[in-house]
Amino acid sequence: MLERATAGDVRALARVLTEIENRTPSGRTFMHDLFPRGGRSWSTGITGAPGAGKSTLVSGMIGRLVPDDGRLAVVAVDPSSPFSGGAILGDRIRMADHAGDDRVYIRSLANRGALGGISESTPAILAALDGLGFEELLVETVGVGQSEVEIATTADTTIVVVSPGWGDAVQASKAGFLEIADIFVVNKADRPDTDATVRDLEAMLALGAPMSWSPPVLTSIATDSVGVEAIVEAVHRHREHLVATGELGLRRERKAARELAAAIRQGVEASSRDRNATAELVARIAAHEIDPWTAAESLLAAR
Amino acid sequence: MLERATAGDVRALARVLTEIENRTPSGRTFMHDLFPRGGRSWSTGITGAPGAGKSTLVSGMIGRLVPDDGRLAVVAVDPSSPFSGGAILGDRIRMADHAGDDRVYIRSLANRGALGGISESTPAILAALDGLGFEELLVETVGVGQSEVEIATTADTTIVVVSPGWGDAVQASKAGFLEIADIFVVNKADRPDTDATVRDLEAMLALGAPMSWSPPVLTSIATDSVGVEAIVEAVHRHREHLVATGELGLRRERKAARELAAAIRQGVEASSRDRNATAELVARIAAHEIDPWTAAESLLAAR
Repeated sequence: MLERATAGDVRALARVLTEIENRTPSGRTFMHDLFPRGGRSWSTGITGAPGAGKSTLVSGMIGRLVPDDGRLAVVAVDPSSPFSGGAILGDRIRMADHAGDDRVYIRSLANRGALGGISESTPAILAALDGLGFEELLVETVGVGQSEVEIATTADTTIVVVSPGWGDAVQASKAGFLEIADIFVVNKADRPDTDATVRDLEAMLALGAPMSWSPPVLTSIATDSVGVEAIVEAVHRHREHLVATGELGLRRERKAARELAAAIRQGVEASSRDRNATAELVARIAAHEIDPWTAAESLLAAR
Repeated sequence: MLERATAGDVRALARVLTEIENRTPSGRTFMHDLFPRGGRSWSTGITGAPGAGKSTLVSGMIGRLVPDDGRLAVVAVDPSSPFSGGAILGDRIRMADHAGDDRVYIRSLANRGALGGISESTPAILAALDGLGFEELLVETVGVGQSEVEIATTADTTIVVVSPGWGDAVQASKAGFLEIADIFVVNKADRPDTDATVRDLEAMLALGAPMSWSPPVLTSIATDSVGVEAIVEAVHRHREHLVATGELGLRRERKAARELAAAIRQGVEASSRDRNATAELVARIAAHEIDPWTAAESLLAAR
């Protein structure tokens, strides 16, 4: 199954990812085999408020990022994304652009359960695609909450997309985007207040602690493919910067620590005899009937 | 020991908290006994950039919050706070104000190890003080990172303190403070750009999703005790709001879930045979030698 998926069999690929997403025993075995094969792909996260034009931008980036003799995968965690089947009237993205290209694989994680579930399976799906030989990974998330910010921070390069307007700049700032953005994109740059928004973002960024990488603020009109080339170039520059400074190693170590902590919690929860045991313990902690350390001990002992 | 600490014996109190902080077996036993006695205190977090005047404000709030026949504890997680022994020249706080008041207990967690250690022991120390009968808890943190934001979100009411100036408003926004603030305070309100800062913050808050509680933006001159009374009143109003709307129960349940997850991770790490096992596994995950789920399983199996 893994060999067929690696060779590009789309149905095998879908089955492997579904098993991993559902955390079945086969999924665990697949992950165990795939993870050590990975570490060579580059993941680019695209996040921003709904309506900023993330999907159109992703669609434009695909053609410029897909390697000639390699593969690219898009993981859509935004339920309103056309990649997730959530296309709305007026959305000008044409999925057909990539429908015939077997170097491009698109996977939606948007309709697979609650938000917590989505954000929890995303790192595993990305690691699996990495191990399956996809050189480029694009992750589209809707950045309106802590969970999405967490997903974004698992990417090697994070692009934050905003629309022109002071409101959007402030929203980006409020959502914690200034911390996570490696590249800022003001999309819909044919609108009048584009320059002001770029200046606002640059001013906000300048107030932060100096960093070895200064996130550029780029503009694009994704629907007309304007500015997309420069964004892809910025992704490449950012990649070179992380590699050259050694920061990539630090980032991937931090990511590993987060993944281990999440896996420990999942392992404990999955193996506790009663599925509701965790929820019940949380309620009892909230009611001050039991302390968190004793509760953790009882979950660990129940394994 | 617990009875002496509860009765107000300061040395017993210090010993109990130290055992809990160091996670010794006695500390675990203390926690086990203390946690179910708690749930009655109100914790107010005061956060903001260094130099905003948090400590002076805390000092002013102590006298107005301490119950006549009860007790108040200050937990300082900011290494630069005078409460942590880090007073700097020009700091006008007089700790002597409260030195003779045995209803007030001050505990610094600032010099006890790395940041991760600090933020990890803070919830346990707060829960212990709660169980020891302190009705009011004030937590001072320096809000310049994710860890501090996490600490702040464990408080029932979170006050974000900024200095006048557009830079501070933007910094507050960048640090994720707009999300966590229940009350905003623009301190040093004798400075010229105070009104503009209040307006900026109110405009930023207005752009956010509507909430059942609208964080007020207050002003103070903490060094002259101006505005402190209104801040304490706002804390009381916020408390009444959380209780009346039932939101308090939701908040405390979310907090319990976070505490349980942290306790599980701590439990696994503490009992792994090799102290360095976790760090080694993280490095191996980062190097793609082992997947996080297998690594978690090996840590759990090693217990």
